[in-house]
Amino acid sequence: MAEPQYLSGNSPAISAFLDKFDTFLIDCDGVLWSGDHVFDGIPETIKLLQNKGKRTVFVTNNSTKSRKEYYAKLSSKGIPCQVEDIFGSSYSAAIYISRILKLEPPRNKVFVLGEAGIEAELASEGIAYLGGTDPKYRKLGMEPEDFAGIADGSALDPDVGVVLAGLDFHINYYKLAHAHGYLCGNHASKDANKSGKAVFLATNMDSTLPMCHSFFPGAGSASVVALSNMTGDQPLALGKPSQAMMDAVEGKFHLDRSRTCMIGDRLNTDIQFGVQGHLGGTLAVLTGVNKKADWEKADAPAVPAYYVDGLADLRG
Amino acid sequence: MAEPQYLSGNSPAISAFLDKFDTFLIDCDGVLWSGDHVFDGIPETIKLLQNKGKRTVFVTNNSTKSRKEYYAKLSSKGIPCQVEDIFGSSYSAAIYISRILKLEPPRNKVFVLGEAGIEAELASEGIAYLGGTDPKYRKLGMEPEDFAGIADGSALDPDVGVVLAGLDFHINYYKLAHAHGYLCGNHASKDANKSGKAVFLATNMDSTLPMCHSFFPGAGSASVVALSNMTGDQPLALGKPSQAMMDAVEGKFHLDRSRTCMIGDRLNTDIQFGVQGHLGGTLAVLTGVNKKADWEKADAPAVPAYYVDGLADLRG
Repeated sequence: MAEPQYLSGNSPAISAFLDKFDTFLIDCDGVLWSGDHVFDGIPETIKLLQNKGKRTVFVTNNSTKSRKEYYAKLSSKGIPCQVEDIFGSSYSAAIYISRILKLEPPRNKVFVLGEAGIEAELASEGIAYLGGTDPKYRKLGMEPEDFAGIADGSALDPDVGVVLAGLDFHINYYKLAHAHGYLCGNHASKDANKSGKAVFLATNMDSTLPMCHSFFPGAGSASVVALSNMTGDQPLALGKPSQAMMDAVEGKFHLDRSRTCMIGDRLNTDIQFGVQGHLGGTLAVLTGVNKKADWEKADAPAVPAYYVDGLADLRG
Repeated sequence: MAEPQYLSGNSPAISAFLDKFDTFLIDCDGVLWSGDHVFDGIPETIKLLQNKGKRTVFVTNNSTKSRKEYYAKLSSKGIPCQVEDIFGSSYSAAIYISRILKLEPPRNKVFVLGEAGIEAELASEGIAYLGGTDPKYRKLGMEPEDFAGIADGSALDPDVGVVLAGLDFHINYYKLAHAHGYLCGNHASKDANKSGKAVFLATNMDSTLPMCHSFFPGAGSASVVALSNMTGDQPLALGKPSQAMMDAVEGKFHLDRSRTCMIGDRLNTDIQFGVQGHLGGTLAVLTGVNKKADWEKADAPAVPAYYVDGLADLRG
C-alpha cells in the first residue's frame, strides 16, 4: 500500500492531481460543512473545479434531506450545483426498491424509519410508504394495546414488504417496535395469502453524524443497529460504501471510473466506497470524522491515495 | 459437554434434581410470564419449591421495575415472595455505583436512559440522577440549539460521572444525543477542574423483551448498542450474565454456589450466568426466547444441565 500523498500547500502536486480526474464525487457533511457551518473557501473551491471543466457530483449518506433540499442548502451556501448533480442515500434506496426489488401488490409498501428526505425520494419513484414523519408514529411510551397489536399483527399493515431505516431525529421505541414486528413477519399472519418477513434495507450505516464541531447519533446507531441487534440480520445498506450505490452513480452519470476521484472525510464510508469501486483515486479531508492516525492503524478500513487538511486547500 | 437432561414428565429425575439444590435463582420474563400473562401452574410450582425448604430468588434483567414493583407484580399473580428475594439489574447497577464506583462530588450524578425502576433503585442507594423519566428528556426531534448545547456542553450537567443505560420505552434521539455527549466528555469542557468522559454502564444487554408471545426491543437493542456503536466502547453490564451481578447475589444471599441452580429461558443471559458462575446446575425452560435447537448449535453461548418444557413441569 503506497503512502497517501499530502497535497496541502504543494501547488505542483495539486495540479498533477487535478489533471488525473474528470469527475469528483464529493461527500458533504464533514467535507463542505459541519451542520450549518460551511468551511472557509468551499464555494470558491467547487467553482474552481467546475471552471477547470470537472464534473462535481455530491454523494451524501445523509438521508434526512431529499435531492431538492440538498440543492437548496448547497445553493444557499453559495456552492454552485444542479439537482441532477446530487446523489443521496435516500435516492439510492428509492431507486433500489423501485428498479431492483420491484415491489408488487400486495406487499408493496415501505415502513420508514427516517425523515422527510426519504419520503420525498420514495414518492419520486412512486413507492407507497408509511411510518416516517406521520405524527401517529411520533409517540413516546407504549400502551398495553401497542404491545398486543404489534405482537398479533393487528396494528400492522399487511402490505408492508420493506423496512427502510435511515437517520430519524424522531426515533422512538414505538417506531422501533413496529419496524421489528414487520421484520419478524408479525403482519403476515393477518392474511394467509401473504407471508414472510419484510426485507431489511438501510439508507446508510454511519455510526455518527458530524454537527456543530461534535458528533451525534448517525443512522447506523440510532436505528439500524438497534434493529439488527434484535433480529440478528444485517440490512442491505444503500449508501456509501455499498457498491449498489456506486453502480447506481455510474449508471446515472456514465462516469469513467479510472478518471473519477472520491472525496470524503470518513474512511469506512467515503474512502472505502472509492477503493472498493476501483476509482482512479480517493482524497481524504481532515475536517470531519477521521484523521491521519486512523488510516495509519493496521486495521484501517481503507487508506486514501491523497489527503488535504481541508478541501479548500485544492485551490493551491 | 454432557447432554442436557430432560425432566418434564420424569418424576424420579425431578426428585433427584430438586434434592441437589437449596437455592433456585429464577428469571422472570419468559419463565414465570410473558408480559402480563402468567404461565399455567407457576404459583403452585413456586409454592412447591418453598414448601420443600428451597430458597427462591427472583433474578431479573428487566430494569423498568424496582424491587418493590416486582414484588407487587409477583404478589398480584399469586407468586409468594419477599421484596428481599428479588434481585433486579437496576438494583445491581445501583449497588455497583454506590459501593464499587463510589462516585464523589463533583462528578457524582448518573445520567439515566431508563424507566422509574432504575430511578427508584438509584434513590434507594442515595445516588443523584438526571434523565430517566424527567419530562424534559421525553422529547421528539432536535432543535438547532439542542445540537449546539450538547456539542459545546452548555446543555449538559458538569456533575455527570456515569451514563447508565437500561430499557427505556421513551427512548428518543434527544436522550441518546445527551448520553453520547456525556460519554464523549463534552460536559467536562465547562469546568477546567472537571475532566474526562462519563463511565458507561448498562443494566443489561438483552437484545429483546418477550411480551405478548412475541418479542420487542430489549435494553441492549433500544439504547445500549446505539451508544456503543457510536463510541466504539462496550459498557460494563450489571445484569446477567455479568459476574458482577453474581458476586452481588452471592454476597447478599450467602449462597453455596454448588447447591444453587439458575433457571431461565435465555442461553446468553440466564444459562451463561449460571455456567460462568460455577453454580451447581442450570435449568432451561422452553417458554421464552431460546429453544432446544439453540443449544444444539456449535456456537451456542451456553448449554444447560437440565431442561423442561415449562417451569410448572417441576411439579412432577
